[in-house]
Order: sequence, then C-alpha cells, then structure tokens
Amino acid sequence: MLGSRRVCQIAVVVRDIEKSAKAYAEFFGLPVPPIITTEPGLKVNQTYRGQPSDAQCKLAFLKLDNTEIELTQPLGGPSSWQDILDKQGEGIHHIAFQITDTAGKVRTLATNGIPLLHQGGDPKTGQFSYFDTRQKLGILVETLEGYK
Amino acid sequence: MLGSRRVCQIAVVVRDIEKSAKAYAEFFGLPVPPIITTEPGLKVNQTYRGQPSDAQCKLAFLKLDNTEIELTQPLGGPSSWQDILDKQGEGIHHIAFQITDTAGKVRTLATNGIPLLHQGGDPKTGQFSYFDTRQKLGILVETLEGYK
Repeated sequence: MLGSRRVCQIAVVVRDIEKSAKAYAEFFGLPVPPIITTEPGLKVNQTYRGQPSDAQCKLAFLKLDNTEIELTQPLGGPSSWQDILDKQGEGIHHIAFQITDTAGKVRTLATNGIPLLHQGGDPKTGQFSYFDTRQKLGILVETLEGYK
Repeated sequence: MLGSRRVCQIAVVVRDIEKSAKAYAEFFGLPVPPIITTEPGLKVNQTYRGQPSDAQCKLAFLKLDNTEIELTQPLGGPSSWQDILDKQGEGIHHIAFQITDTAGKVRTLATNGIPLLHQGGDPKTGQFSYFDTRQKLGILVETLEGYK
C-alpha cells in the first residue's frame, strides 16, 4: 500500500530530549545530536485528527548503520506525540517510510480502512503524515515526502 | 556499548499472530509469512527477571528492504512479551541488534546500569537477550548472537 519497504526512521517519544539524546548517544557510541524545534504547526498546515493544530516538538536524530532513530519531545498542543506520551509513556511512536504521492496514499489507505491521523507540511518542502495503522498493525506508520 | 548500530529486527507484540501476519503482508505487499512456535523456554535455558521461565511464543518474520519486522504472540508463561502486551497492548516490543560476546555485553551493560531482563538459548546455537534499557532509552533492546 505504501510503495516502500525501507524503514527510514524509528521514532521514540520522550519527555526530556536533552537527557534522551545524551543517553542514546552514549548507548550507541555516537556524538550527541543537535536538537531542533519544529515550526509552530499552524505555519506548516499541521492537522491532528482533522483539526488544525499549532503543536510543536523538539527533534533529534541519531544515524545508525541502516536507519535512523528520531527522538521527539512534544511541546504542547494537540498531537499524536503528546497523546501517545500521555497514554503509553516514553516509547516507540512510529516507524517511517519515504514515499511519493502523499495525497494518493492518503486516499488508498483510507479506502483500506486506515485513516490519516496527523499531518503537516507540503510535498514540495517536506510533508509528514501519520496513518492510524494501530488497529491493523498495532503500530503507527509515518510517511515522509520531499524532505531534503 | 553494543558494538552494533544495525537494527536487524523491529519486533511487535500482538494478540493474534495469524491475523497480524496477514495484515502486515497486505500492508507491505509481501507474502504471508510462515508462523513458527518457539521451544518451551526451559528447554532453551530461558530466564525472565532472573528466574527460569517455560514461556513460549509464536513468531513470524517480514523481510523489509533494510530490516525485518518480527511479530510475536506470547503463549503464556512469564515473559517480557506477555508483560508488555498486558501493560501496553499491541505495539513495538523491542529493536534488535546482532552482536558477539553476549556474556561480555551483559557485564558491560550491567556496569552501566542496564540490567538483563529476559534471555534464552546459548551463543553456539542462537541466543537472545533483552536488556531493560527502558529507564535510559524508553525502549527495550534485544541482542542476538549465533542464529543462522
């Protein structure tokens, strides 16, 4: 359904990204990664459960040999990051795949009973889309398109 | 600490592996994988939280381009599979790394405040070890040694 079988990111939602970034770097023997703060959600067309959301998060990336770990600390506002952190505590939030034709994938997955949950950006400058595959797969899946 | 940065498996704990194996196969456009049942834990030196455990599980593997998804359905007995399924429901149980010198890694990680949680097998025929990295990393990490 996705057109990709390469896991480009394994994302972990955390409460204190500075602490987690150091712990992951130490565990994998990597440099402590820089931490970035995302744009306010309303500046990047962000929606969560079909409603506009101004949620932001802090992100850090650790490059492993065959994929990447993404650490995410939500900074408030309605988001799947905050919801999953509140419900399950720290842990894996999703696995991500690079795709093309996000709009087409949204339609295909909806037809197959998999709703879009959380989205932001646009395919030209970079767009992320979380699909609620939890009912079918037990996990969340993210697609990424157009990020450099 | 591990000596590996290649995620060889992303493991998902599920309630009904037949149903999940079909759903994952459909989602990724792959053949439905065979389902295997592990040996009774006491036959393969299995321990959980330091105590012998006869727990078993059903497993299925989906080969993606750069890693593998492992589906795990616990079949009773004390195990991290059952505990995580009971506490968090279906979802990602751990990420796995191929290593050598499991005994040495157990010592190194313990020195760094990361206890062994669940183990089985032996390095010659195949040994799995789950380390309780949840406090530090928010996720469980498994090491694998000697499996063909």
